[in-house]
Amino acid sequence: MRIALSTGGGDAPGLNAVIRTAVLSALHRGWDVLGIKRGFAGLLGEDEVIPMTRETVRGIGHLGGTILRTTNRGSPFHYPVLQPDGTYQYIDRSDELIENARNLGIDAIISIGGDGSLRIAQQLVARGMKVVCVPKTIDNDVPCTVNTFGFDTAVSTAIDAIDKLHTTAESHDRVMVLEVMGREAGFIALYAGVAASADVVLIPEISFDIEKVCEKIRARDRGGRLFSIVVVAEGAAAVGGAESIIGESLPGQARRLGGLCEPLAKEIQRRTGKETRSLILGHLQRGGQPTGYDRLLSARFGGAAVRAVEEQKWGHMLALQSPHIVTVPIEDVLRSEKRVDPDGDVVRTARESGISFGD
Amino acid sequence: MRIALSTGGGDAPGLNAVIRTAVLSALHRGWDVLGIKRGFAGLLGEDEVIPMTRETVRGIGHLGGTILRTTNRGSPFHYPVLQPDGTYQYIDRSDELIENARNLGIDAIISIGGDGSLRIAQQLVARGMKVVCVPKTIDNDVPCTVNTFGFDTAVSTAIDAIDKLHTTAESHDRVMVLEVMGREAGFIALYAGVAASADVVLIPEISFDIEKVCEKIRARDRGGRLFSIVVVAEGAAAVGGAESIIGESLPGQARRLGGLCEPLAKEIQRRTGKETRSLILGHLQRGGQPTGYDRLLSARFGGAAVRAVEEQKWGHMLALQSPHIVTVPIEDVLRSEKRVDPDGDVVRTARESGISFGD
Amino acid sequence: MRIALSTGGGDAPGLNAVIRTAVLSALHRGWDVLGIKRGFAGLLGEDEVIPMTRETVRGIGHLGGTILRTTNRGSPFHYPVLQPDGTYQYIDRSDELIENARNLGIDAIISIGGDGSLRIAQQLVARGMKVVCVPKTIDNDVPCTVNTFGFDTAVSTAIDAIDKLHTTAESHDRVMVLEVMGREAGFIALYAGVAASADVVLIPEISFDIEKVCEKIRARDRGGRLFSIVVVAEGAAAVGGAESIIGESLPGQARRLGGLCEPLAKEIQRRTGKETRSLILGHLQRGGQPTGYDRLLSARFGGAAVRAVEEQKWGHMLALQSPHIVTVPIEDVLRSEKRVDPDGDVVRTARESGISFGD
Amino acid sequence: MRIALSTGGGDAPGLNAVIRTAVLSALHRGWDVLGIKRGFAGLLGEDEVIPMTRETVRGIGHLGGTILRTTNRGSPFHYPVLQPDGTYQYIDRSDELIENARNLGIDAIISIGGDGSLRIAQQLVARGMKVVCVPKTIDNDVPCTVNTFGFDTAVSTAIDAIDKLHTTAESHDRVMVLEVMGREAGFIALYAGVAASADVVLIPEISFDIEKVCEKIRARDRGGRLFSIVVVAEGAAAVGGAESIIGESLPGQARRLGGLCEPLAKEIQRRTGKETRSLILGHLQRGGQPTGYDRLLSARFGGAAVRAVEEQKWGHMLALQSPHIVTVPIEDVLRSEKRVDPDGDVVRTARESGISFGD
Repeated sequence: MRIALSTGGGDAPGLNAVIRTAVLSALHRGWDVLGIKRGFAGLLGEDEVIPMTRETVRGIGHLGGTILRTTNRGSPFHYPVLQPDGTYQYIDRSDELIENARNLGIDAIISIGGDGSLRIAQQLVARGMKVVCVPKTIDNDVPCTVNTFGFDTAVSTAIDAIDKLHTTAESHDRVMVLEVMGREAGFIALYAGVAASADVVLIPEISFDIEKVCEKIRARDRGGRLFSIVVVAEGAAAVGGAESIIGESLPGQARRLGGLCEPLAKEIQRRTGKETRSLILGHLQRGGQPTGYDRLLSARFGGAAVRAVEEQKWGHMLALQSPHIVTVPIEDVLRSEKRVDPDGDVVRTARESGISFGD
Repeated sequence: MRIALSTGGGDAPGLNAVIRTAVLSALHRGWDVLGIKRGFAGLLGEDEVIPMTRETVRGIGHLGGTILRTTNRGSPFHYPVLQPDGTYQYIDRSDELIENARNLGIDAIISIGGDGSLRIAQQLVARGMKVVCVPKTIDNDVPCTVNTFGFDTAVSTAIDAIDKLHTTAESHDRVMVLEVMGREAGFIALYAGVAASADVVLIPEISFDIEKVCEKIRARDRGGRLFSIVVVAEGAAAVGGAESIIGESLPGQARRLGGLCEPLAKEIQRRTGKETRSLILGHLQRGGQPTGYDRLLSARFGGAAVRAVEEQKWGHMLALQSPHIVTVPIEDVLRSEKRVDPDGDVVRTARESGISFGD
Repeated sequence: MRIALSTGGGDAPGLNAVIRTAVLSALHRGWDVLGIKRGFAGLLGEDEVIPMTRETVRGIGHLGGTILRTTNRGSPFHYPVLQPDGTYQYIDRSDELIENARNLGIDAIISIGGDGSLRIAQQLVARGMKVVCVPKTIDNDVPCTVNTFGFDTAVSTAIDAIDKLHTTAESHDRVMVLEVMGREAGFIALYAGVAASADVVLIPEISFDIEKVCEKIRARDRGGRLFSIVVVAEGAAAVGGAESIIGESLPGQARRLGGLCEPLAKEIQRRTGKETRSLILGHLQRGGQPTGYDRLLSARFGGAAVRAVEEQKWGHMLALQSPHIVTVPIEDVLRSEKRVDPDGDVVRTARESGISFGD
Repeated sequence: MRIALSTGGGDAPGLNAVIRTAVLSALHRGWDVLGIKRGFAGLLGEDEVIPMTRETVRGIGHLGGTILRTTNRGSPFHYPVLQPDGTYQYIDRSDELIENARNLGIDAIISIGGDGSLRIAQQLVARGMKVVCVPKTIDNDVPCTVNTFGFDTAVSTAIDAIDKLHTTAESHDRVMVLEVMGREAGFIALYAGVAASADVVLIPEISFDIEKVCEKIRARDRGGRLFSIVVVAEGAAAVGGAESIIGESLPGQARRLGGLCEPLAKEIQRRTGKETRSLILGHLQRGGQPTGYDRLLSARFGGAAVRAVEEQKWGHMLALQSPHIVTVPIEDVLRSEKRVDPDGDVVRTARESGISFGD
């Protein structure tokens, strides 16, 4: 048996722990393990495929990033090729990938990635390849699993940032606006906001009214709390309330870091007269050493991935359905959507403990 | 409506976040909130009962400990009274407690505590009091809930300790033995051991053979890994393998900190000839600031507790059944038992990635 | 004896530890202590002056921010007054301040602040007031002292950010540009860059050439290191090399957060063809819990400040001249300047271990 | 030019950063670099001598421990040899070491270690070898330098422990006794105690009276502070006050971890009637990732060590005399002694802010 590992999409804390545990668990069975560098680039002749040994994975369990490197640069089924005129043309290189995998004697692939990787895996399985997936998302927007590694670390980093801004905000009687990740789903903003006692949380799932945000800040002032913390998910730029601030809602540009954060801070300052500062947390959220929670979850996913290969769960994704790790057909995952439930207990608790969603 | 909060048993990181969110959620409904100091001592005239306001809970969400203080000193139904001869006599003071609660106009109690507190709550409900419970356990041994606040922090502290010991062990070619909490259940040892790549994990749920522990250490030496990390749950003193080291298994004395840890280190050094050092993590595991995970979970429990009061869930305990917070009858909790599953995915992953359980 | 404490300028981790220790040390002598809220605003009738007791300072030693609050809003000798037309007029309100201090029976003031506060103190002493100063600067640019509290915390936060960016940069083959504080002096950028193994460090003290920065990045690429970390002090916008990127050097606008960081990232991407991302660390650097180093140093300054009052060191600033805390005349401090020494051991070590300053 | 690096004595956070920077700085000059494994064992045929390249030191700057490994097992001038009867005989193997160094073409050695390593270096220099030293001590007891790497990390770990114990102590109305490192000098106990607001600090430099310790605890109780934190340096067992507790002062056995800590806790409980718990911080203090302060200092020492070789400072030790790194003759270091100054500003500040030294 020879398996290969691949990591695709943005990096997330815990990738190395998944790799380490999967490699050790496979070697434990007497299998061969290969590592495909940079997503699937290693199988397209654009990077390496390397043997994975005990030595390769020694001491990496607590390190951020991925020793296999990764890329956001597209699917083998729709691969960007730079043209002489500077534009890209997209071509299907899947035959080449499958051919190369066959030549390397790869029996099965463990693909660790987000929804892009899930779609690629689904297509590869349709072409007869044997693939199981480990979900990866900082934003917690992969359905069918309670969460995935990297999310807890991102939330912790956001909490740490709110704690830090809190002391400055309070000392200077300021409003601080913090933008965190979450293009489609506001989990990081919501969880960090509740855990760190933010005052306003703006997420893509709940349209906001800038005037209600300001009213919350003014109400705090009247109560002698002369500072406020506003946490905004980057994807909140795509919802209703953003229009009044940035002239339009930004579904197409929601990815633009800070697209909403700075205009929002200026508008709050204009309306409330309070000194307002903004900070974009950006890449700090996906880097660094994983939390203990993510180190454990990653190890569990790595071990379970090898067992899923053993059980021939091709086209399945691992999922945490606490306290169990289960497998779910990729197609079930891809036809669902995971978002913050505006009526769920976390949002209710947030509201009842004084957090405004600007609605 | 007037409710009262109580925290009982050993402290756990997150207690203050539960208190804060419960108080704010109750005030949000226009209720009165009281805080019973030191378990139920405040209702027995041995400590205070104080009003809980927004001011009382300001800025406490990230602090360890409990502003209500706590105690391990026994149940109102079986209360220790010091006799002139230095011994204790145990008496039932529940009438007094119920009377005092009535005089204070307390309509319902939110009791935050471990199995001791659950039993007290059950008895109080049988006497007609209105009580809902929030589970608290560092050891993760409360059934019916995926976990409770404090556990993630304890695991993180243990992981951090293993990381630190790792560098010294490796630099000095040593064996390091770390004792972590877990009298009945080995979750902390198991989770921290897997997350931090320990080499041997000894838990109450799996009998160990000291010779197999030593064989693992020798095998690592032969493979050029001249150091090893052994993580032992305090409750492992109660299982079979402990006899050969401490002369007997220690069910009755399992609570004695370090009862197994130091003899185990000596025995490993004697059998393997390798320099072996031990460390008892002790109270570091229950102190300090909660992790982000625990801050969120605590807030969710605090908010849900108030909703459970609203829904009159007397005699129920809140439980995390991810992604939901639900309520479970206390009697269901008390007749179950929660232990590490020796055939579960975490133990399997541990074994397959090279961790020995000494069996 | 009655003394008063004041904190002015931007907040810095450690302020509360200075306050706590100064208050306890003064109470220990049987003195009265007052706290002037928000810089000197409390003495101008625009905020409070409060009594400082053991209770007031309980448990604040490890908290960021300042319980006395602070402000950047100007000197009592040049106080901004909002005019009906929306502009500010500046007036001398020092008589009022001195009068109020006398009415409150204040014998001496401990002023904790940066160069602005030092200048105010010097003027107050010239007017006959009894003032000693505790230096405060995140940027480490106060002369005559090895460093001050808050700087170690800021450097640690910057190191932590570089560590986090490192894993993403390496996984994605990217260049990451991080802007840290340092308007006049590049200490944070230099120290964090050396400690966290950055590849390029740009500081106000060393003019840089953007092409040399890019050459360093290309040289790393050729050596198989496909990522690079660039750390830039905000004040680097004021030096030579910035002109080629932002069209001009920015002495007057050097304070503008991100004024250089984003254009620099774009220019690097344009010249090297490498994916380049930027991050402005901003307020994260001055918030949050102080490091152990800063907690100790703050306590030492707080205790020494009270002894300086006892020794009537009016017009002096406390200074760390390791291992001693000494007092230095404010005028000596104000006529010096503290900058990174381009020929000092830290820069030499940086260069010799492979860091480029773009020169 | 060919240099060799050695790390000896107990590990300390920062060793790898010294190694990394020294290697890079030497390679920068076109020199060869060797690494002697396990103290000087690599030069005695009992371990390896390895080439040090850029690859060897890649990514180690922030890691605890030492990639060269280390040992406490004695000097080449007095080397322990196990005899058939189980005892050790000590022989002089320096000729062999010098011969092996010559055969390997080693021109100079950078020895990183504590007082043991300094003595060995002095003897090697007397024998004609070219050695410069980098000081290493967790305890901060190497004279002539403000401090060395590892100490700040150890203090931070101790502060973190005190913070954690604080929440439990306060919640449970307990006394917590924490033993930290410091056999001859009480710097860790003192600095951590002041930074983290301990109530009692016991150090080898100040004799204590157990009754005065208890009186402090009782006084706090009377003031409504029902908990206390006692920090004790392991070396405090060697001073006067220990006799009344452990029957004798323990100069010869002061190294025994916990020799004083547990009896002290029991005695406090007996005398005050307060529940008292103890914790020995032990090896947690020397492991793990160095603080930012230590990462910078280590890098500075590594770079300066190579410059000292260039300047032929044989028989000298590097020293931090803030803000400079200087060189000091080893003999000056060895004839001095560095202890806490009982009349210094830190002890004075401690006393004035309410800390008792039990005297």
